[in-house]
Amino acid sequence: MSLKSHEAGARPIGGQRERLYLYDTTLRDGQQTQGVQFSTPEKVAIAKALDGLGVDYIEGGWPGANPTDSEFFEARPQTKAVFTAFGMTKRVGRSAANDEVLAGVMNAGTPAVCLVGKTHDFHVTTALGVALGENIEAIRESVAHMVAQGREALFDAEHFFDGYKANPDYALACVMAAYEAGARWVVLCDTNGGTLAGEVSGIVAAVIAAGIPGDHLGIHCHDDTGSAVAASLAAVDAGVRQIQGTLNGLGERCGNANLTSLIPTLLLKEPYASRYETGITREAMAGLVKISRRLDDILNRVPLRSAPYVGASAFAHKAGLHASAILKDPTTYEHIEPALVGNARVIPMSNQAGQSNLRARLQSAGIEIDKGDDRLTRILDAVKAREDQGYAYDSAQASFDLLARAELGLLPSFFEVKRYRVTVERRKNRYDQMVSVSEAVVVVKIGDHKVLSVSESVDETSTDRGPVNALYKALSKDLGPYQATIDDMKLVDFKVRITQGGIEAVTRVIIDSEDGQGRRWSTVGVSANIVDASFSALLDAITWKLVRDGIEPAM
Amino acid sequence: MSLKSHEAGARPIGGQRERLYLYDTTLRDGQQTQGVQFSTPEKVAIAKALDGLGVDYIEGGWPGANPTDSEFFEARPQTKAVFTAFGMTKRVGRSAANDEVLAGVMNAGTPAVCLVGKTHDFHVTTALGVALGENIEAIRESVAHMVAQGREALFDAEHFFDGYKANPDYALACVMAAYEAGARWVVLCDTNGGTLAGEVSGIVAAVIAAGIPGDHLGIHCHDDTGSAVAASLAAVDAGVRQIQGTLNGLGERCGNANLTSLIPTLLLKEPYASRYETGITREAMAGLVKISRRLDDILNRVPLRSAPYVGASAFAHKAGLHASAILKDPTTYEHIEPALVGNARVIPMSNQAGQSNLRARLQSAGIEIDKGDDRLTRILDAVKAREDQGYAYDSAQASFDLLARAELGLLPSFFEVKRYRVTVERRKNRYDQMVSVSEAVVVVKIGDHKVLSVSESVDETSTDRGPVNALYKALSKDLGPYQATIDDMKLVDFKVRITQGGIEAVTRVIIDSEDGQGRRWSTVGVSANIVDASFSALLDAITWKLVRDGIEPAM
Repeated sequence: MSLKSHEAGARPIGGQRERLYLYDTTLRDGQQTQGVQFSTPEKVAIAKALDGLGVDYIEGGWPGANPTDSEFFEARPQTKAVFTAFGMTKRVGRSAANDEVLAGVMNAGTPAVCLVGKTHDFHVTTALGVALGENIEAIRESVAHMVAQGREALFDAEHFFDGYKANPDYALACVMAAYEAGARWVVLCDTNGGTLAGEVSGIVAAVIAAGIPGDHLGIHCHDDTGSAVAASLAAVDAGVRQIQGTLNGLGERCGNANLTSLIPTLLLKEPYASRYETGITREAMAGLVKISRRLDDILNRVPLRSAPYVGASAFAHKAGLHASAILKDPTTYEHIEPALVGNARVIPMSNQAGQSNLRARLQSAGIEIDKGDDRLTRILDAVKAREDQGYAYDSAQASFDLLARAELGLLPSFFEVKRYRVTVERRKNRYDQMVSVSEAVVVVKIGDHKVLSVSESVDETSTDRGPVNALYKALSKDLGPYQATIDDMKLVDFKVRITQGGIEAVTRVIIDSEDGQGRRWSTVGVSANIVDASFSALLDAITWKLVRDGIEPAM
Repeated sequence: MSLKSHEAGARPIGGQRERLYLYDTTLRDGQQTQGVQFSTPEKVAIAKALDGLGVDYIEGGWPGANPTDSEFFEARPQTKAVFTAFGMTKRVGRSAANDEVLAGVMNAGTPAVCLVGKTHDFHVTTALGVALGENIEAIRESVAHMVAQGREALFDAEHFFDGYKANPDYALACVMAAYEAGARWVVLCDTNGGTLAGEVSGIVAAVIAAGIPGDHLGIHCHDDTGSAVAASLAAVDAGVRQIQGTLNGLGERCGNANLTSLIPTLLLKEPYASRYETGITREAMAGLVKISRRLDDILNRVPLRSAPYVGASAFAHKAGLHASAILKDPTTYEHIEPALVGNARVIPMSNQAGQSNLRARLQSAGIEIDKGDDRLTRILDAVKAREDQGYAYDSAQASFDLLARAELGLLPSFFEVKRYRVTVERRKNRYDQMVSVSEAVVVVKIGDHKVLSVSESVDETSTDRGPVNALYKALSKDLGPYQATIDDMKLVDFKVRITQGGIEAVTRVIIDSEDGQGRRWSTVGVSANIVDASFSALLDAITWKLVRDGIEPAM
């Protein structure tokens, strides 16, 4: 997508609304989050999700700076969004064409390139140790180099706000050099994250007054004072037309401006909704919760319940007064309709609304229960008691179905696990290498018939896959009359969460299974013993498949 | 503390700085957080912490509305802060003196009382179902009642911003009634949390223009658009002089304005630092991280790493370029000095780390290596190779130290694990209940001496704590000459992450340990076998403690 097509799309509704561009840096600045390291397949999955959402730019990383980033640029998917490589301006003392770090960035062959450069005089002299004029020259040459190579050129003005406060003339000279050299976007970065919204707005106005039009200016905020979203909006109010941010607010230190918060505000709140057009459609925004959760899944992070718009608590009405008013009219205590971002209203299970939620859930599992039936209360009590122990049924619908069926007397007893034992042993092999192997024995009673099965964890490549693998293999080895039904089952994901913290924590295991018809279901197990939690989730997975396929119990 | 003494303290430095009041509602609105329910002792502990911090008001809850709140008001500690009971304005159709809900609030006997009332015409007619004039009368009478009883009177104007947008005259008439009846503070509440900072500032200005002076106005924001902190600051800019908020941003739905973010901004950032005085001293602010963690401890929540100012990542410098500049001068990439809020700088390891990042890490581990030393490259290569396998060193610095020491030939061999075996068995006990127990055998060679240790996972309460617990107990049971050094060690957290997804995924285990001196360190283990990954992290935890304590190897 060229600069031209961007501008062609700038005023879609009869020129009434101005185009605002969203630039995602989840894959670059987001990777600066402590504890985050994306693999190439993960980056590909995230890039596809971002493109589906409709952001205008995807910054993929710094090619050449580390092997994973380089590999990703080779493997990057085709996107409607403008793919952007990140790097830094050429070093002083060599030409742009002869700087091998810059060459590494250009060689990724992306339609757009974003180079960061210094604009704060103190950093130029202290961190870089070069003359102020040399730095301006490096900015100018680097931008001209990108333009000469036919790329859409972006300049990230590092520490711009602190730089402007220290030496406004120098900071302005740096960004003017980038603009005059042909940068499509000059991005004002609050690198240290300490600038408040009011200051951002004043300084943006000064930059525009100095000669860079707002539709060539971007804003890049960090959340070190908890103001990144508001400061980004303040910059838009002052005239910038590109916002940089990340999904779920990932990023260095306290994170970047959170696009997951900004997008609904821009589409739903005034003055933004009437004044600006973005690349995000209403339909795409309805998938926002899903995209946010997908990223947490990839990172194996517990989603932040209190996240604006997309958090599980964002539309949870705990206060009694609020909940009863919500029943009369949801707008009484909700600032937007939750479905607009793919979220849902939560009303504590204990009251009337909780019961109708439950009935809807049972219905979708094929169980019809009349309104006011006592058994609804009994199921709610059972769910609540289990949740107190650490169970989470929101992400384990199959286990919820089984729990409800058990309470309703609709769960057949297919087989009974009498006992199991799993052993993990680590010792030297005959080549004097330390190796481990796990072995599991499961004893099951089917009708009057007792079956002992044993399996080990070693796979085709002689690698030990651990105790849960050995247990699953033993459990699913010989289930007599049920064997044909479970033969096409496959465990596709395994997630572990410590639900209470500390070494004596309770472990929650969620297992995703799949069968030959492509059906997927999730089950949950909870125990202080991680092996036992896993076994219980495995057992649910098999039982659900038998129920779902309408198998008659042999007992 | 009376209103008078408040005002006496308003201009402490020769009348130059205006007094800004902080009103904490952690114990009331904070308790509306999904999953939060404080006990009375917990409320007492939090109230004491808040008083130590120096907030001006502590809102303790709604006495009479639920038994726990009533109990707390009986048990509440003596505080310098003004203790405040929360309730609602009298109901239409009875006098303030004869409203038993209001009486329940007044009977708590607090020096200040805060009553919420409606100011949005739609809510008055729809949710309350009373005439608009009756509602204004109820506000006036309720405030007058508080004043007549000698209390400092606060009026929480519910849905004020939405109400003002719908019917400015009515919303203003409501708050004017409260002010004229003698309310010390009229608090403008953005109850649904959807109002952006720009709108807050315009509407506050309109209220002041209508006749309520800013030093009688408060602001109460929710974070539903991620703007609660910025909107509170915008309200102060527009003239309000009381800010309501909660510790760690607890509260209904997405939470309230986060005082943990606002306090450092007010004390350290312009224009607030020069313009306003609060009740928080610099000394008290240096305990902010501790107070924030204490609240998470009480709630048994994992602290949010990315929290502004107080998060564990708030001063973590992952990017290689940042880390090298930080070494030259910390102000290059830090907006404030971390110690001001009781936080600390972190330079984590990651595969984006440059050599300077590495040198800084080594330095803080007591290892000096010259710039350009070949061994730096060797360590980086080793780190990268491990990270490709799934290791994550930025959250496991102790394991990083050991890896670096091993590469540098600085890691003594304390003992050798010859083999281990752990068994998890689940079967019926003599009461016909299914129970599990794990048993571990670890064989260690110390010098020429071979030690076999065995332990099981059952704790004092006869609960099975699983295979990792059993392994740790066996490993740390008898380490001969090292036993005294490791006896004060405790495992405090255990985190599991599946790094590649799928049932054949690689498991990364991170273990946090603590010793008798309060030192904490984190170690990592990676394997397809979760037990083996855990064992390897345990081994690192013990080895690091021996290295750190300068123990001589016995081999």
